[in-house]
Amino acid sequence: MMNHRKLRMGMIGGGPGSFIGAVHRIAANMDGQIELVAGAFSSNPEKSAIAGAELFLDNSRIYQSYDEMFEKEKALPKDQRIDFVSIVTPNHVHFDPTVKALKNGFHVVLDKPMTLTYEEAKELNKVIEETGLLFCLTHTYTGYPMVKEAKQLVSNGTLGNIRKVYVEYPQGWLWKNVSEEENKQAGWRTDPKRSGVAGCMGDIGTHALNLAEYVSGLKLDKLCADLNTTLSGRTLDDDGIVLLKFEGGASGVLMASQVATGAENNLKIRVYGDKAGLEWQQEDANSLIVRHPEQPDQIYRAGANVPYLSSYALANTRTPAGHPEGYLEAFANHYRNFARTLTAKLNGTEPEKEWLDFPSTEDGLRGMAFIEHVVKSGQSEQKWTKFKL
Amino acid sequence: MMNHRKLRMGMIGGGPGSFIGAVHRIAANMDGQIELVAGAFSSNPEKSAIAGAELFLDNSRIYQSYDEMFEKEKALPKDQRIDFVSIVTPNHVHFDPTVKALKNGFHVVLDKPMTLTYEEAKELNKVIEETGLLFCLTHTYTGYPMVKEAKQLVSNGTLGNIRKVYVEYPQGWLWKNVSEEENKQAGWRTDPKRSGVAGCMGDIGTHALNLAEYVSGLKLDKLCADLNTTLSGRTLDDDGIVLLKFEGGASGVLMASQVATGAENNLKIRVYGDKAGLEWQQEDANSLIVRHPEQPDQIYRAGANVPYLSSYALANTRTPAGHPEGYLEAFANHYRNFARTLTAKLNGTEPEKEWLDFPSTEDGLRGMAFIEHVVKSGQSEQKWTKFKL
Amino acid sequence: MMNHRKLRMGMIGGGPGSFIGAVHRIAANMDGQIELVAGAFSSNPEKSAIAGAELFLDNSRIYQSYDEMFEKEKALPKDQRIDFVSIVTPNHVHFDPTVKALKNGFHVVLDKPMTLTYEEAKELNKVIEETGLLFCLTHTYTGYPMVKEAKQLVSNGTLGNIRKVYVEYPQGWLWKNVSEEENKQAGWRTDPKRSGVAGCMGDIGTHALNLAEYVSGLKLDKLCADLNTTLSGRTLDDDGIVLLKFEGGASGVLMASQVATGAENNLKIRVYGDKAGLEWQQEDANSLIVRHPEQPDQIYRAGANVPYLSSYALANTRTPAGHPEGYLEAFANHYRNFARTLTAKLNGTEPEKEWLDFPSTEDGLRGMAFIEHVVKSGQSEQKWTKFKL
Amino acid sequence: MMNHRKLRMGMIGGGPGSFIGAVHRIAANMDGQIELVAGAFSSNPEKSAIAGAELFLDNSRIYQSYDEMFEKEKALPKDQRIDFVSIVTPNHVHFDPTVKALKNGFHVVLDKPMTLTYEEAKELNKVIEETGLLFCLTHTYTGYPMVKEAKQLVSNGTLGNIRKVYVEYPQGWLWKNVSEEENKQAGWRTDPKRSGVAGCMGDIGTHALNLAEYVSGLKLDKLCADLNTTLSGRTLDDDGIVLLKFEGGASGVLMASQVATGAENNLKIRVYGDKAGLEWQQEDANSLIVRHPEQPDQIYRAGANVPYLSSYALANTRTPAGHPEGYLEAFANHYRNFARTLTAKLNGTEPEKEWLDFPSTEDGLRGMAFIEHVVKSGQSEQKWTKFKL
Repeated sequence: MMNHRKLRMGMIGGGPGSFIGAVHRIAANMDGQIELVAGAFSSNPEKSAIAGAELFLDNSRIYQSYDEMFEKEKALPKDQRIDFVSIVTPNHVHFDPTVKALKNGFHVVLDKPMTLTYEEAKELNKVIEETGLLFCLTHTYTGYPMVKEAKQLVSNGTLGNIRKVYVEYPQGWLWKNVSEEENKQAGWRTDPKRSGVAGCMGDIGTHALNLAEYVSGLKLDKLCADLNTTLSGRTLDDDGIVLLKFEGGASGVLMASQVATGAENNLKIRVYGDKAGLEWQQEDANSLIVRHPEQPDQIYRAGANVPYLSSYALANTRTPAGHPEGYLEAFANHYRNFARTLTAKLNGTEPEKEWLDFPSTEDGLRGMAFIEHVVKSGQSEQKWTKFKL
Repeated sequence: MMNHRKLRMGMIGGGPGSFIGAVHRIAANMDGQIELVAGAFSSNPEKSAIAGAELFLDNSRIYQSYDEMFEKEKALPKDQRIDFVSIVTPNHVHFDPTVKALKNGFHVVLDKPMTLTYEEAKELNKVIEETGLLFCLTHTYTGYPMVKEAKQLVSNGTLGNIRKVYVEYPQGWLWKNVSEEENKQAGWRTDPKRSGVAGCMGDIGTHALNLAEYVSGLKLDKLCADLNTTLSGRTLDDDGIVLLKFEGGASGVLMASQVATGAENNLKIRVYGDKAGLEWQQEDANSLIVRHPEQPDQIYRAGANVPYLSSYALANTRTPAGHPEGYLEAFANHYRNFARTLTAKLNGTEPEKEWLDFPSTEDGLRGMAFIEHVVKSGQSEQKWTKFKL
Repeated sequence: MMNHRKLRMGMIGGGPGSFIGAVHRIAANMDGQIELVAGAFSSNPEKSAIAGAELFLDNSRIYQSYDEMFEKEKALPKDQRIDFVSIVTPNHVHFDPTVKALKNGFHVVLDKPMTLTYEEAKELNKVIEETGLLFCLTHTYTGYPMVKEAKQLVSNGTLGNIRKVYVEYPQGWLWKNVSEEENKQAGWRTDPKRSGVAGCMGDIGTHALNLAEYVSGLKLDKLCADLNTTLSGRTLDDDGIVLLKFEGGASGVLMASQVATGAENNLKIRVYGDKAGLEWQQEDANSLIVRHPEQPDQIYRAGANVPYLSSYALANTRTPAGHPEGYLEAFANHYRNFARTLTAKLNGTEPEKEWLDFPSTEDGLRGMAFIEHVVKSGQSEQKWTKFKL
Repeated sequence: MMNHRKLRMGMIGGGPGSFIGAVHRIAANMDGQIELVAGAFSSNPEKSAIAGAELFLDNSRIYQSYDEMFEKEKALPKDQRIDFVSIVTPNHVHFDPTVKALKNGFHVVLDKPMTLTYEEAKELNKVIEETGLLFCLTHTYTGYPMVKEAKQLVSNGTLGNIRKVYVEYPQGWLWKNVSEEENKQAGWRTDPKRSGVAGCMGDIGTHALNLAEYVSGLKLDKLCADLNTTLSGRTLDDDGIVLLKFEGGASGVLMASQVATGAENNLKIRVYGDKAGLEWQQEDANSLIVRHPEQPDQIYRAGANVPYLSSYALANTRTPAGHPEGYLEAFANHYRNFARTLTAKLNGTEPEKEWLDFPSTEDGLRGMAFIEHVVKSGQSEQKWTKFKL
């Protein structure tokens, strides 16, 4: 019998002061296919209780720890227990709850990067493969419809053979030293014990690489990094530029900074092939510029009613052209695709191909490998560092 | 005791093929404060059933008509019945269900324009006042944080005395004749029995006027309209331009078209005072341009972490600057403000002033009066037609 | 024998403090086809002498008045005397020197508007026709290559039948009262004796109408104007909006203001036909946006090497795409086209059709008629005022 | 006695098919301070004759070679002979005519890059110093008023200490193999004998470096280059990315490509300091974006009437704000500043400091050194290559 119901979600992390927890909840809520029914929102049980109450959860399902959540949810009847967990903790608390969730039979949505270290990522990857459960890593930006369109334009040959990829993610929010009291994010994201071996490169460099590989369809082959720790008192990189060589010979550059004073979050990608080029940036997220030589530039526009868009773009759009969708909708696209795929899986039906297009374990592994390699390259006197999983 | 729970919503209309129904549901879902628990989604009971099932509603609360919904919901225990209805039907089915909802004690969110005729609007207005229930009319665009910021910049004197208002809403979707089979919207929106005496002016001209009055703080005093029915076979205006005079002497113009071939939905407003001017457009919704003479232009940017923004903008923002929010978030802002105000009302507490900033019955009345006046002016040989409620 | 030489220009007006005189000289200089050899730069002989010396003129050809210039130049041998005059005086000093120049056998480039009154314009028009001499009126904006491209897209049917024209010219420089000492422009341009019956509408409204008629190929049929004199102490309009009806039924609006605080000179036109729409604005002068329904938007780009552009755009471009040209090049295009046509005329050869595309007496007459009609309509209680030459 | 006259210019190169020759002539003409009176326009005497005639030169001053020009001009009376030469030949014909011009007492304007090799540049530099004559190297982009404003904002401390420089120059015109018949530029610019050891890096990479050093006030210290020859059959780089380290510790990146398919000439620079950041791009050349953290972004606008601009920006602007100036005006600014300085020198007066702000021998030397180093680094396995003159 068809399992026609909302999926039940439990959340780990995302208590008071968490930016990304709130984003995950909005993304999960938006399309009415998921309901938050349980949570362990903080390592501090009081904070978890406060968060759960604010989120209208039943008291019995606000947990003091994720261990408790797994144990008690598992004990609930099948038609009540959570289907999956959403894990939105700092990086150093990714591995343990994810592994436990999977081993207890819960599917997982995990905030990026996958883990604290590449070693953990490889181990987690094995668990994912062994359990066969569904895993989604929220590399937000590949959820944008025009990013999906860009990928299709590359894969359908509109751009020809890809020669060059420019990707950049300039932020300015760490332009000065910020204490953890002032900004919870600034605290853990600049602390190697909680963030991992990279700062800026782990936080946003991984997004940029993921976007570059997703759109271009290319795989990184080697890299040359110049990483900087601009402000004294910091231990991790807050800025860097990475030369890229892809398998097959295309080249590129990845620019990421958290000290680009005044910059917000204008992630941008440009891809050039031997037939055409394209350009997308988050600040104008609903447009995709395509440049064919000797022809007028084209502006592809996101919109539910746009006949020339690919099925991938259309499946990730909610409003007519000109009514802008944004970051939260991109995030929600990953949740909706994950939820649709999971529902199909639970029902034993075949998911549509567009639903399967959400970031998963391979993206996670590559991201963690990128972090390791980029730090190593940053310390090397040699120009090129080979990238290998 | 504090009533800490999600608000329960019933929906009227929004069945298969409805664009705006889906938008209302996303807007209601987004912030996790409202849950859809009942609905009469179509005048066709089968379609209502299909819609309800797709939305995961309990069978017992999918109704064949709104009359049935009101009756049965009213009979439910107080802690189960819906708190409010969201009415998303075509214009000719606004008055009846809204009046009945109110008379049965349910608060109402209603899609704009308020009613089919100005007469209905006045009558509805009386019912709203008599029942004292909460009423929200979803003039979407005043939900944008930077529109709220614009209003604050006018009201706090940054622009000085307002001299001039330009507002425009160019659409192109009715550039050719479209049958109702092809596009359900094109059907009822061009049919006077379901749409009212105006086409373009009712559909989007009212949005433009609402935006102009909201931002400028001015009230329309007289107008001069040139309305056009561009395509043969149509009975309503599909295009028009309206000269505006506001109380106090400022002037302006309102441009609206549905035959601006190739245009999407780039609603735009410019307001000029004797100290400074401002400019906002939906296509770049997260920016607000402020121009002071003899100084660099300023770009105000939406964002949860932006220290210079007013409390009104900040209360209607979810993401840090540079992570774009869009149309659905603007829509959700009205729902969230309505929900917060309603929760306060249910709890007997005072709502914060920012929550009360959602469009209500006065906006609705003025919009319906605008439709009447603009059609009358369009037919007049006299230049100016006095605007009065 | 072919007359292969630079054309010799005399200038009337353009002395110290003149903005537009300097612009005319740059425009005439730019392409090396014209040389300034004589001038009567001011009604004040001392100022004329200073200006002439600064411009490296031979003393013998710096004149105390234009009457003196005509007399003495006429007495020079044919291979020395000026070929044409460039008249850049305030509006009330357009008619007399232009008529005299023509009657003395000199071709004329004249700054717009053509004359102080419509009566003068009609009379001048007769003189132009009688003398058969070449006359160019510098409506700058039709000199932009992408404006020419826009005209071609309309005339070659790309847009289909034109339905709608939006044209706007918002300026802010008269946002406050400015004395003539502070700003020479502000002085005469707000003085009816020197500027004519209209202020804003004469100064920039005529540019907007000219652009609208040029691009759309339509002729104004009737209009309805709301003119405002915003600042007390002024006698002429400093702001206005005009509803437009064109012959054949298309409609439009013309917005012009000099009190749009903070606005610069972003003249903008949008034209919508039953097949496509287009958009051009001075602020992004090298782009022309073309919108076909159900296709990606197109950005046509100015550039000497752009294969898809019309011969009209290409003949008015100097640099490769992406090296922006601007206002001075648009101005220079009129001079160059005038010069090329005049050289052909002097040589008895046929000018190319692209060279003939500069504004002339019909543009001037229509502009002056527009000023008369727009002022009359502004004072009328009737909605529509018929436009007739 | 004051020497109040136009400067007399001779041109070397710039015959039929030359893009940059025409640009130099427009730039020299524009402000009416320079007159072209002589030229050796091609190594082919017939072509030189044709070009000279088209430019209205006196037959006696159209030369068959630059050697002839120097000899004959030198023999003319002082009040007739050229003051300076403008040299617009391909790179391999820079050194010889420049040295000879100087040794014959003529000042020089030279198109960039300075010479074919760094060795030549050093030798030329000595000649310049020995002769004490004026030398201008036309690095066009530092002639833009908003680039000058950017430099001032850095040097006056508005940005604080500079941390990061991003500079990019993406072109697409060499996206496919183009024969010399099709495009004269494509011929010599991809030929090492005429272009030098670098292709893309010499042609536009040098512009980018010059812009970066000019605006930031920083000097390059070491670099790490990834150069590519994308199309088979080419011998020089057509693309590359260079990591930059500046003296004092700031870092940056320089991206240049001629195979960025569809790209035009959107040279762009971003500079970030510890107080603010700025951004300028040629496509929107009249705007300069300044970003202060926690304040609205600012848009500085070029314009002759803009009170907040520095004297450097104002001295290089001709039109009021909103009337765009472009590439040709930027180019003309170098000519005008050179001409003003030269006139002062001839008159024995002190030039104003703003006039001296044109690119000269140091820019040329550094550019040639950059070419040498970038090619060397491109071939090295070591990450960093020290940059030294």
